[in-house]
Amino acid sequence: MAQIQIMIRNLLLISNSTNAGEDYLAWPRTFIKEFLSKFGVHKVLFIPYAGVNLTPASVEKSFDLYEDRVKKIFKEMGFVLHSIHREPNPVIAVNEAESIVIGGGNTFHLALMMQEYGIMEPIRRKVLRGTPFVGWSAGANVACPTMKTTNDMPICEPPSFNCLKLIPFQINPHYLDANPAGHAGETREQRIQEFLSVNRGTTVVGLREGCLLNVEGDAMQLSGNRSLRVFRHGMDAQEFQENENLDFLLK
Amino acid sequence: MAQIQIMIRNLLLISNSTNAGEDYLAWPRTFIKEFLSKFGVHKVLFIPYAGVNLTPASVEKSFDLYEDRVKKIFKEMGFVLHSIHREPNPVIAVNEAESIVIGGGNTFHLALMMQEYGIMEPIRRKVLRGTPFVGWSAGANVACPTMKTTNDMPICEPPSFNCLKLIPFQINPHYLDANPAGHAGETREQRIQEFLSVNRGTTVVGLREGCLLNVEGDAMQLSGNRSLRVFRHGMDAQEFQENENLDFLLK
Repeated sequence: MAQIQIMIRNLLLISNSTNAGEDYLAWPRTFIKEFLSKFGVHKVLFIPYAGVNLTPASVEKSFDLYEDRVKKIFKEMGFVLHSIHREPNPVIAVNEAESIVIGGGNTFHLALMMQEYGIMEPIRRKVLRGTPFVGWSAGANVACPTMKTTNDMPICEPPSFNCLKLIPFQINPHYLDANPAGHAGETREQRIQEFLSVNRGTTVVGLREGCLLNVEGDAMQLSGNRSLRVFRHGMDAQEFQENENLDFLLK
Repeated sequence: MAQIQIMIRNLLLISNSTNAGEDYLAWPRTFIKEFLSKFGVHKVLFIPYAGVNLTPASVEKSFDLYEDRVKKIFKEMGFVLHSIHREPNPVIAVNEAESIVIGGGNTFHLALMMQEYGIMEPIRRKVLRGTPFVGWSAGANVACPTMKTTNDMPICEPPSFNCLKLIPFQINPHYLDANPAGHAGETREQRIQEFLSVNRGTTVVGLREGCLLNVEGDAMQLSGNRSLRVFRHGMDAQEFQENENLDFLLK
């Protein structure tokens, strides 16, 4: 008898916290509220490790400010948020979390600290047993098998580029179609083609700003007012709209 | 008696191969020709490892095409160029090189292969004994102490982010002042500020497209039609023009 394996996972993977000219976390707010409410979440464990420079004072102080900033918004949505950087034992905090939210910033610093505190595998286990997970920008990057499609500067050196592998494909958040006029550096598409040249079996999803992916089990849906762009080695990139079936990307 | 140590090094560190709308290597051509000629160079050892996707066929084939492309231009300038990827023993090739030129592309792949082939330290030794060195884009990145200020996507995982350390500061090539309109991702300056938050003692030089640094011993000069931007932790960024003294950055 064939075994049918269904992934238990509830993910909200958000391209960016903030659209140009809008308030912090303004556009994804209703999505986050609806998603967490659906699972009866009251308490949120926040991972601030990507937010290294909200103040020049110190990285630790930056985490404090990051927590304050996000806590306020989550309180308005009806959730109690506290940050893992205040926990004496981060692994226990993960294991006891009702939901996990990873904020954006620098993916290298985020992955480094997640690995140093030994929470990569505990978060993976927890989320694949159903604990709701929200990540934006760097937080969406670390939901992927590796951090190899981040846009961030490698400001520090994590022991490994491996990440949570909550999904089988790579997200490129803040996906951007063109360079500023007159700039000759690689476009985002060229960077992703470089990635595919040395990672030929991997699929990359370019997730434009103002867009998110909602994964529940083996089903995935795009929300937002722009299409997403799917890249595979040796194939033309393909665009998918909000109403199209994306479940194939989870296979 | 105090010892006076003078670094022997002759470097041409170029932000970008090509300005928007121009031919490949068009703008830095006269600078490269003048620089290599000054030291009586005839033969150039080319490092193509950053060029991973000049063809989708294979990375090896991409190096072949990269060599062809650069060889043609160097021939027009009067130099004989051959690529290290054709050499049976890359370390011997480095030790016997008359000059070393590192092309742009993906810095992670470049650093990975330089480390795998064990040529990082041999190049450093060779160049610090006076062998002329030219690097553009990723090639300028690896001249720095680390590759932590590259703009490239981390498509593969080098054993270490440490690089050639031919200069004591970090270059950010293709330095860019603004994002495309409507894009909310981090600006380049914000990315560099993130770097400084966790690397407080390091100086970062934003080198705009169409600009290069010429280092000879303990003297450094900017060429190009734009200023460079110097970043240090806790200080306002400073702009320096072509005619200003930059030797302090080498101290």
